[in-house]
Amino acid sequence: MPVQTIASTASVELGPAAALSCRECGERFDLGPIFACTSCFGPLEIAYELPQGDPEELRRRIEAGPESIWRYAPLLPVPADVAGKPNLNPGFTKLVKADNLARELGVTGELFVKDDSGNPTHSFKDRVVAIAVEAARAFGFTTLSCSSTGNLAGAVGAAAARAGLRSCVFIPHDLEQGKVVMAAVYGGELVGIEGNYDAVNRFCSELIGDPLGEGWGFVNVNLRPYYAEGSKTLAYEICEQLGWRLPDQIVIPIASGSQLTKIDKGLQELIALGLVEDRPYKIFGAQAEGCSPVSAAFKAGHDVVRPVKPDTIAKSLAIGNPADGPYVLDIARRTGGAVEDVTDEQIVDAIKLLARTEGIFAETAGGVTVGVTRKLIEAGVLDPSLTTVVLNTGDGLKTLDAVAPTTGPTATIRPSLDAFRDAGLAL
Amino acid sequence: MPVQTIASTASVELGPAAALSCRECGERFDLGPIFACTSCFGPLEIAYELPQGDPEELRRRIEAGPESIWRYAPLLPVPADVAGKPNLNPGFTKLVKADNLARELGVTGELFVKDDSGNPTHSFKDRVVAIAVEAARAFGFTTLSCSSTGNLAGAVGAAAARAGLRSCVFIPHDLEQGKVVMAAVYGGELVGIEGNYDAVNRFCSELIGDPLGEGWGFVNVNLRPYYAEGSKTLAYEICEQLGWRLPDQIVIPIASGSQLTKIDKGLQELIALGLVEDRPYKIFGAQAEGCSPVSAAFKAGHDVVRPVKPDTIAKSLAIGNPADGPYVLDIARRTGGAVEDVTDEQIVDAIKLLARTEGIFAETAGGVTVGVTRKLIEAGVLDPSLTTVVLNTGDGLKTLDAVAPTTGPTATIRPSLDAFRDAGLAL
Ligand SMILES: [Zn+2]
Ligand SMILES: [Zn+2]
Repeated sequence: MPVQTIASTASVELGPAAALSCRECGERFDLGPIFACTSCFGPLEIAYELPQGDPEELRRRIEAGPESIWRYAPLLPVPADVAGKPNLNPGFTKLVKADNLARELGVTGELFVKDDSGNPTHSFKDRVVAIAVEAARAFGFTTLSCSSTGNLAGAVGAAAARAGLRSCVFIPHDLEQGKVVMAAVYGGELVGIEGNYDAVNRFCSELIGDPLGEGWGFVNVNLRPYYAEGSKTLAYEICEQLGWRLPDQIVIPIASGSQLTKIDKGLQELIALGLVEDRPYKIFGAQAEGCSPVSAAFKAGHDVVRPVKPDTIAKSLAIGNPADGPYVLDIARRTGGAVEDVTDEQIVDAIKLLARTEGIFAETAGGVTVGVTRKLIEAGVLDPSLTTVVLNTGDGLKTLDAVAPTTGPTATIRPSLDAFRDAGLAL
Repeated sequence: MPVQTIASTASVELGPAAALSCRECGERFDLGPIFACTSCFGPLEIAYELPQGDPEELRRRIEAGPESIWRYAPLLPVPADVAGKPNLNPGFTKLVKADNLARELGVTGELFVKDDSGNPTHSFKDRVVAIAVEAARAFGFTTLSCSSTGNLAGAVGAAAARAGLRSCVFIPHDLEQGKVVMAAVYGGELVGIEGNYDAVNRFCSELIGDPLGEGWGFVNVNLRPYYAEGSKTLAYEICEQLGWRLPDQIVIPIASGSQLTKIDKGLQELIALGLVEDRPYKIFGAQAEGCSPVSAAFKAGHDVVRPVKPDTIAKSLAIGNPADGPYVLDIARRTGGAVEDVTDEQIVDAIKLLARTEGIFAETAGGVTVGVTRKLIEAGVLDPSLTTVVLNTGDGLKTLDAVAPTTGPTATIRPSLDAFRDAGLAL
């Protein structure tokens, strides 16, 4: 496992981030662009020295902060002056009270959609990339990089442009033109690799270990421990927007599983800091049937996740071997939640349901969470009388193909009142 | 000119909106779903009884309000409790300090981009439609309607869905599939009309005058006086986000010209209310060369606008006979501004310039304003040492075709380090 080193990280100033800590064996490392434990190869994550003292004071400090993830800077691995640096200021997206959707689903409690399509490049990736940018700056990296087939490419390109960093994004050479445009428009280097997404990732791993990749921050590889923490902000925002209160139930999509585990970590931090009352909450994971290794393991009662070959329209969730799968299983079981999956058809139906009830056009990942919510309510697993938050992590404009075959005009007519009357629309 | 009447508008509760007033002859009418003066056929606009009293108190009230256009409810034709009704809560989008762009353009003062791609359906149309929804509710309308070839269709469909209104959107039958999907996904009626956009509009005019259209609110026809006021919120937000200060210069796209006139109206209201210091500001209008009737009239020194047949990639600005053209000319001249246009090629260049400097992917309309800003600076018309705000009114994801032909990978290579080295990227 290649581990990059830089001259000195002793002076790295990333706010409350104190060290990196191995999730498996607990060994600690200085903050740096490393992502795997040298003893056991376990994943590294940030160990914090979080603010002590009066929760009321911290709460006021957060509420007086900027309307972006930077209001939570005291809880993130970023410098204290982060809000003053050029960045896309993602986050603080709408928590939409979804009364129309609640009625359709038979929810009698409060139902909310946390709508991350409101981020600068319209997906939750802006949150995680923004944290990676600060790590890149702290480590003196001059190029921001990633492999991607979708949302991440745009998020990295846009964030690097604004931050004044170079960017180089690697994609499979045969990606659809629309996605290529979204990745290329920010003016960084965009490199098509002749091969599939696995080939792109293998190439990137080689590059990280080579002098050619010197000074490069791969947001989800050597900057991954920082990057991943961005998902904590979803937990912070949900609780603050609920009036500093934990939801009873959260439905979260699973790709690598990282987002779900970090949301749980964020909730635990809020409890530990006294910012919310400590009471039970349940975390539910949502997958597409065509890529449901964690759901399958949950239902089978397994602790390990058996990799699958993805085949689903929910491309942004199509990770067949999810690194954080075992942690997801643990969280779902520990909190009394569950992991469930829905078919591609159910995903499309759920996208349309959310659009026609709340005016929110979600990416396929949002169809997965809404669809799983519906399925879990029907199965009696999710309690419809409680406060439930469903995540929509991206924008339907980016996955038009998913709904296009079944979404069109209700009628096509000549321009005459007679023709309109004859069309017999239910108006 | 067909004028719909409803049983009684005496009890209509739309906040500070007191009446409708003819822009040409000044005649006043009760609030209702009418849009043209019965005496002179002039356009009607809202006459307000704006809040009197201490500006400081009003400012505090606004600042304590919701993070949407509803913080300005005391200045809008909406009921006082509007924020509690189901709607998309548009507005309060980012005012981005564009230092990278400023450097490229040689701007030494402060340059800002008001980025309305952050709205719920990713264009400024969410602002105007949200006001129209409140008018529709006040008049007891049950169906929200419009003709559209783009942003408005999605904005109406989404807003109606969330508000619990029916919607019926009319489009030319041969619109591209992507745009059809964006309009249809919210589940309202979407009717393709066999004919071009003019035919669609003629059909809608017939429908408004017919019993078939009874109870229908066409957002930009019989609800237009209310709808148009939504653009005032851009002026309010810009000034508040500048710290309750007028910008020196604003660059605004021109379609019908309504947005520009309403932004001027909003600025004048802030001055009259004492919310900002009264000092000169200049308003600049921006058009695409392929649809530049107002720019042509400005340059020729005319007071009237000669209609043109649009031919430009900036489809959202392609109104060949802009209703508010004369008012735009008046405002540009009165404030010491100008109206300018740019070619399609300059529009594309400007979209890419904004993307690579600030990470903002603008719709073609945003390319028009950024391109015109660049042109006006080069011509010495726009003062680069002052505080300038440039509007981006929509999202590049909706006009991918504009940049697609010239936006692609910088290289396509085999998955090997040698191939990457040989590609010779400037990294
Ligand atoms: Zn270890
Ligand atoms: Zn009149």
